Amino acid sequence: MSVTVVGSIAYDRVKTPFGERQRMLGGAATHFALAASFFDEVRLVGPVGEDFTDMDVLRTRGSVVDDVQRVAGGETFFWHGEYGWDLNSRETLETRLGVFETFDPELSEASRGADTLFLANIQPDVQRAVRAQCRASFVAMDSMNLWIETARDSLVQTIGMVDCVILNDAELRQLTAKPNLVSAAREVLAMGPSVVVAKQGEYGAALVTADEFFSLPAYPLETVVDPTGAGDTFAGGFVGWLSGHPGDYRTAMAYGTALASFNVEEFGTERVLRLTREEIEDRVQHLGAITRLPLPV
Amino acid sequence: MSVTVVGSIAYDRVKTPFGERQRMLGGAATHFALAASFFDEVRLVGPVGEDFTDMDVLRTRGSVVDDVQRVAGGETFFWHGEYGWDLNSRETLETRLGVFETFDPELSEASRGADTLFLANIQPDVQRAVRAQCRASFVAMDSMNLWIETARDSLVQTIGMVDCVILNDAELRQLTAKPNLVSAAREVLAMGPSVVVAKQGEYGAALVTADEFFSLPAYPLETVVDPTGAGDTFAGGFVGWLSGHPGDYRTAMAYGTALASFNVEEFGTERVLRLTREEIEDRVQHLGAITRLPLPV
Repeated sequence: MSVTVVGSIAYDRVKTPFGERQRMLGGAATHFALAASFFDEVRLVGPVGEDFTDMDVLRTRGSVVDDVQRVAGGETFFWHGEYGWDLNSRETLETRLGVFETFDPELSEASRGADTLFLANIQPDVQRAVRAQCRASFVAMDSMNLWIETARDSLVQTIGMVDCVILNDAELRQLTAKPNLVSAAREVLAMGPSVVVAKQGEYGAALVTADEFFSLPAYPLETVVDPTGAGDTFAGGFVGWLSGHPGDYRTAMAYGTALASFNVEEFGTERVLRLTREEIEDRVQHLGAITRLPLPV
Repeated sequence: MSVTVVGSIAYDRVKTPFGERQRMLGGAATHFALAASFFDEVRLVGPVGEDFTDMDVLRTRGSVVDDVQRVAGGETFFWHGEYGWDLNSRETLETRLGVFETFDPELSEASRGADTLFLANIQPDVQRAVRAQCRASFVAMDSMNLWIETARDSLVQTIGMVDCVILNDAELRQLTAKPNLVSAAREVLAMGPSVVVAKQGEYGAALVTADEFFSLPAYPLETVVDPTGAGDTFAGGFVGWLSGHPGDYRTAMAYGTALASFNVEEFGTERVLRLTREEIEDRVQHLGAITRLPLPV
């Protein structure tokens, strides 16, 4: 059993109301892998530059970096952003694609053979090229407003080739032009996938299938320091759990939610790097407790 | 057993992306009463003008209007607003206080003796004047950004005299200047109440006490037509249920959520007026189903 993830490996410069980091390890594939590695062997696919010094971190909990390609003379993807006072808004101040500009993924045989594939947020043509190389029985994907605006047709094609779409609710609305979340999710299901997950930030996440709706709040925290990577960490917990428990969506939502809650407590990967499985289990159980509705049957 | 509610009885002019109404019955006390009347006898307290023609509607499901005061020569409170495309933003185009401008509540003995009191969103001095007249063992209140901005000290005094505060999360943050919802709720608890409910619109609601956190999503709907009164309808279901089931907060959240979900399906009071108890029970059970997290113990 293994999970292949393709996506960015990055350095982030981030400022939040609670502090800042000039250069910290980030990127969607990084955050995904650090979370998913609690549940399965993760194989990362993505390019890094000559400036990249964190290969050991990517290897945390046994993740495999054979397909992390170091590009001679290249610079690692760089993102610089700043968050507003309540952390619900953020501004991108600079993006340098670096080695991502010419990323043309060629996966190893082992990565192609993984049971599960996560296409993190990259250009939808590239997502499709990766999808075509893989034999995974369960494929999930993320995307973003940029691709909805500039490559919608390609994005819809990619959506038609996956089992699960994980987007935030604003993206779901933008993609479908439907203001109602349930209607928007149903429209995405009609494009092909069997599961849609709507990430709702501090409010949690909802899951929609043809015959099921499930909603889970975010884990309640008094300390939120940096939301960077929360969505990818959620995806790592969610997809990582599903890899070993196909179809167990509700529990997967709980693991994704628990993982994301740790991610936001400190900058970048800091908290999840030293996280233990026991700490995760505690929060998953607590999520069960704080959502339990004791109804007379 | 009975519930007294003091607050506005109004005519609303409303436009949403799905239609408009030039003049429909509204007001916080109205919406609260229509919801709470499923669970207990409701006594409405508030002024109306000579133009008011809906006293029979206020009497729905046995609600008592003895303390609804018709002011000679006065005009009923009037609100005119318009909602944005996703119904999450709204603009107030006109407010005419009318008879509310000189509202000086003097409650009947029966209203003073109710077990439960709901102080809907009115000036906090007036809320306190009502609170002082009542012998209720459980008092809940609402408020709004206007009073946080213009009468904060008085509002904090009122909060200190109630058991339960029901605000939306933006108001909780504004009141406490704390961006974090859990921290904001704890700060409100420190002002005196034992329960804080954070209304989160389309995302549902969260409940915070000294030793409990509970979160419930909104009931998933594909048809949302008019959110006007949703918060007061939620409060009516929540407080109405608690009146007969003291301390049963989680079930109360489910009833409030179910009631609010019907409210938004049509304009103003239209849907809740012809609602049945059976329809409510169905949605409460469904809320249990869509939030159930089946965890290994």
